[in-house]
Amino acid sequence: MSSPVLAIDIGGTKMAAALVEPGGRVAAYERIVTPQSPHVDADGLWRTLLALIDKLPAARLAGVGVGCGGPMTWPSGDVSPLNMPAWRDFPLRDRLRDLFPGLPVRVHNDAVAVAAGEHWRGAGRGRQNVLGMVVSTGVGGGLILGGRLIDGASGNAGHIGHVIVDPEGPECECGGRGCLEAIARGPGLSAWAREQGWTGETGKELADDAARDHPIAVRAMNRAGWALGVAIASATHLCDLEVVAVGGGLSQAGPLLFGPLEETFRAHARMEFAREVRVVPAALGQTAGLVGAAAFVFGGDRYWTAD
Amino acid sequence: MSSPVLAIDIGGTKMAAALVEPGGRVAAYERIVTPQSPHVDADGLWRTLLALIDKLPAARLAGVGVGCGGPMTWPSGDVSPLNMPAWRDFPLRDRLRDLFPGLPVRVHNDAVAVAAGEHWRGAGRGRQNVLGMVVSTGVGGGLILGGRLIDGASGNAGHIGHVIVDPEGPECECGGRGCLEAIARGPGLSAWAREQGWTGETGKELADDAARDHPIAVRAMNRAGWALGVAIASATHLCDLEVVAVGGGLSQAGPLLFGPLEETFRAHARMEFAREVRVVPAALGQTAGLVGAAAFVFGGDRYWTAD
Repeated sequence: MSSPVLAIDIGGTKMAAALVEPGGRVAAYERIVTPQSPHVDADGLWRTLLALIDKLPAARLAGVGVGCGGPMTWPSGDVSPLNMPAWRDFPLRDRLRDLFPGLPVRVHNDAVAVAAGEHWRGAGRGRQNVLGMVVSTGVGGGLILGGRLIDGASGNAGHIGHVIVDPEGPECECGGRGCLEAIARGPGLSAWAREQGWTGETGKELADDAARDHPIAVRAMNRAGWALGVAIASATHLCDLEVVAVGGGLSQAGPLLFGPLEETFRAHARMEFAREVRVVPAALGQTAGLVGAAAFVFGGDRYWTAD
Repeated sequence: MSSPVLAIDIGGTKMAAALVEPGGRVAAYERIVTPQSPHVDADGLWRTLLALIDKLPAARLAGVGVGCGGPMTWPSGDVSPLNMPAWRDFPLRDRLRDLFPGLPVRVHNDAVAVAAGEHWRGAGRGRQNVLGMVVSTGVGGGLILGGRLIDGASGNAGHIGHVIVDPEGPECECGGRGCLEAIARGPGLSAWAREQGWTGETGKELADDAARDHPIAVRAMNRAGWALGVAIASATHLCDLEVVAVGGGLSQAGPLLFGPLEETFRAHARMEFAREVRVVPAALGQTAGLVGAAAFVFGGDRYWTAD
């Protein structure tokens, strides 16, 4: 086969690595639980990543693409993932360049990788204007406009989680108020449900309880769907989108989430040009970030505009 | 001099035409009051435009650029300006192509032209990620990201006026609710002020009264500034902007508007990457749309991505 890309997806709970073929197929895949602080330091995390890469079959590579939890400097790729305190300004891109001299090495936000993957080979395939979203512990995203990944001034374009849906709403961890993420992130949603008398813990349990018609859990899904619908309507009007692909753990709730989302979206996205927009579940599941990381290399300047 | 562009700015109250030099200087300028329906039909409006163009000195042209009130089909340039009922699906681009055979003729939304002008030669000059806005009878805008004009699926990207700032807020003419435009457009703002007991008519009078410390007028400016601040914070987080240039009649209110705007913007735009963003008055005033219309031709694929 033509040379694959070594694709890496780094998050607070797991690290995954894969060989991805030029057509987007994931040809080999390995994953590992992310070692947790304080049991690991920066170099310990790096050695864990090296061991993970070593499990993949040897191959002549076309390059290395990485999606990593933010924040990070971009395009220099010094990463400080919120949920991985052992890495603060860790020079991930430089380390990988030393490891793979002469190869393109491209590091971007993990939600941006998911959006690139969904555009290249998933729910946004063939469209030019796509918002890809991850609704999970946080709410992240990436923007493809005019067929190209939008980076913004500092690689941070796509932060749909901090579009404001209720200016008088709950405080957000960013320091603002009423951001989409403050309402629709898993932990925020289950905290809200517990305030209403629900007795579970995780966003996953909440989605399961909603599927069993638990009234508070259903209201929580309505609330998340409402917030998503408002934010996606704003993004649609501002960016004239064609497809919004929603992935991440909470999107597993299916129609319980997408029903109220669609209802609110249609009520607010009333400009004529917004009529044709489709809001759909992401198509690639767990591998979206790896496929997108490969797209940073295979996609030329469509998905990577920096040096 | 090198060949200028014939730049045209078409709105419901006036039409303007100019010769704009390759450096952006407006070398000749003519304007006329837009004839109002029902005293004029589609061809009458067209003849008015022809007479306006005829007043400019003869020149060998590099092309024709037009900013026109929306909506329109893009890039085909059939226009149906909201405030010019005589033109419905009027083939403005085709008519101009017939008039200037062999020349590039490029027609886009008037607020997009303002944004392009502010990016090319105004408050956003030298930046890569800019939102240009017009706050007037409506609230419009245009997006430049990665140094290029963003068109979206149908040429409608930049509709900041329909970003939602208060989902339970006033009904918007688009059919939605709580859009920025529903709150901050001049007529919406003066309607709100009259409900509070203010006795004036226009947005201009309202701004003048606010400058004289009329308490309701001051509260109206606070309200507009608040709504603008929320919407601009959402746009900044989604698009990772560097500069937001705010023009149009209401922006003439100066610190009365920009003060509360900045305060709300800073309260909501709390992501670290948003700290450096500057929200500033537009720099080009009345000629921004003409300069931007010229940029559609002079700017190559930076401001015109269609055929």
